Amino acid sequence: MVKAKIAVNGYGTIGKRVADAVQAQDDMEIIGVSKTKPNYEAAVAHQKGYDLFAPASNSGAFEKAGIPLAGTIEEMVEKADLVVDCTPGGIGEANKPMYEKAGVKAIWQGGEDHELAGFSFNAASNYEGALGRDLVRVVSCNTTGLCRVIYPIDRELGVKKVRVTLARRATDPNDIKKGPINAIVPDPIKLPSHHGPDIKSVLPHINITTAALKIPTTLMHLHTVNMEVNTDCTAEDINRIFSSQSRIRFMSQGINSTAEIIELARDMGRPRNDMWENCIWPESITVHEREFYFFQAIHQESIVVPETVDAIRAMMELESDGAKSIQKTNKAIGL
Amino acid sequence: MVKAKIAVNGYGTIGKRVADAVQAQDDMEIIGVSKTKPNYEAAVAHQKGYDLFAPASNSGAFEKAGIPLAGTIEEMVEKADLVVDCTPGGIGEANKPMYEKAGVKAIWQGGEDHELAGFSFNAASNYEGALGRDLVRVVSCNTTGLCRVIYPIDRELGVKKVRVTLARRATDPNDIKKGPINAIVPDPIKLPSHHGPDIKSVLPHINITTAALKIPTTLMHLHTVNMEVNTDCTAEDINRIFSSQSRIRFMSQGINSTAEIIELARDMGRPRNDMWENCIWPESITVHEREFYFFQAIHQESIVVPETVDAIRAMMELESDGAKSIQKTNKAIGL
Repeated sequence: MVKAKIAVNGYGTIGKRVADAVQAQDDMEIIGVSKTKPNYEAAVAHQKGYDLFAPASNSGAFEKAGIPLAGTIEEMVEKADLVVDCTPGGIGEANKPMYEKAGVKAIWQGGEDHELAGFSFNAASNYEGALGRDLVRVVSCNTTGLCRVIYPIDRELGVKKVRVTLARRATDPNDIKKGPINAIVPDPIKLPSHHGPDIKSVLPHINITTAALKIPTTLMHLHTVNMEVNTDCTAEDINRIFSSQSRIRFMSQGINSTAEIIELARDMGRPRNDMWENCIWPESITVHEREFYFFQAIHQESIVVPETVDAIRAMMELESDGAKSIQKTNKAIGL
Repeated sequence: MVKAKIAVNGYGTIGKRVADAVQAQDDMEIIGVSKTKPNYEAAVAHQKGYDLFAPASNSGAFEKAGIPLAGTIEEMVEKADLVVDCTPGGIGEANKPMYEKAGVKAIWQGGEDHELAGFSFNAASNYEGALGRDLVRVVSCNTTGLCRVIYPIDRELGVKKVRVTLARRATDPNDIKKGPINAIVPDPIKLPSHHGPDIKSVLPHINITTAALKIPTTLMHLHTVNMEVNTDCTAEDINRIFSSQSRIRFMSQGINSTAEIIELARDMGRPRNDMWENCIWPESITVHEREFYFFQAIHQESIVVPETVDAIRAMMELESDGAKSIQKTNKAIGL
């Protein structure tokens, strides 16, 4: 079988994880990754055997740093069937003409607007809608984490209303510039946060309100989720529905915080201590009549990675069944 | 007028603030404060002119440290009309026999159970119920902050349901032992947190569910509050109701986090940068039909201080009208 040729434009927090996850599949391969500067991430990409591409204007800096380049970003794009754009939020939009000119398919991350791609993706919620598409946006970590729980509950019980408070990690572990380091920041102060509307880009009929806080931690986000449903249910019903989802993982055995979740991922030998699943505490599932609550933690660096692999598979029509793609992706990365 | 004689048993985070706030009133005075160890707080209490009392068994340590004592804790209690017990949560209960033996009135903090005093106090919600009582519990910072907003909304619009997510500061600024320093801790994992039931100790008929997270910050708690009410209303209505409360302060003018609230308190010359008021962002007040949301920040070290002064005034029957006591307390401390 000829593998689908995938390029990753922007080998940063998400891009490097997407590259490794794609490379682990048997129906797609990485033909190149791009980096603007010859930093430690570029050096490791080269050591791992990825062909490295950079803007033509920066080739001198790579040469000086002793990191060999395989060509320019335009040349990388020309070689690919599909480009996963993992450049910082807002930058990806400017790359659209380049992808169109080269006639390649493109995936953007949740930092870009829905309108740029015209289709926002979550594997469990709308895989089939992405089949054969040229342009897809994989929604952000928090939106992915919420779609993964809202979709199966809506299918089985009918969702009347969702209310979420998101405690967001201030920044990623490798960032030494952003804060806060000792404050709570309602972000935004004016409700709702963008997450509620963003869920609607995948699940348009869901009535949802979200409020977000930025807090001094780097490891994971944490959601307090409240859902009203249209059907009588028990905590056991919710538990059963979540248990049926391969990308939901229950937390117990002394895991009482995001710190212990990450320690679990480290102990499991997960690459970069990634936790691709929603981490839900089953003990927190509490039902009052047709309304329930629970806590879930979301690993911002990695949760969209398996979704991106599934998006590639749908767009390249390598698999028409979403459930089969999810299973295949999971197995290949060790989820 | 003879001033009511008040002792503070436990001159720590809350106790030292209560002592200063009582001393600022014209109808009550501090006749002594107690400390178990001769640390820097004891030294400052002495420098400020408070008579200092300690357990008889620790008098040698105070002598050695050069901090003069006025007597034992039992002797302090004997001199008082009313003791404010600010010992750590759970310790206060053991002091009840001592207060009963001395025939003094007693106030406990929210760390003790409701049953210990049989009456849980919030000035705006139930001042009159404390008139002449011998034993009162002033509810905790988070419960106080919630009573202050729930009571006036319930009176004007009727509260159908309250849902709160509390992002709790991990510990106070002077604590060097507790964490987390980089994690989010659902605390407790099993819902509801104790805050919901605790609100009912003041406002028994309120339907409320609370979920709490412990996060790496020391400055303030932050609540995401959702309320369903029985009456049609607008954001302006909510704004007007909150504006009528002297212990609610609106945040604007570039105050976007708890860090900036504390900076405001420092700039205002507040003692120990205390922010006695609920800090609400009016921009966050969002109404959907008969349901609204808002953010409020709560200064855990100081919010119960004016409430404690009002509780004293009610129990000593120095003022029969709660609104007048609140006004008098506020004016004396500069709120």
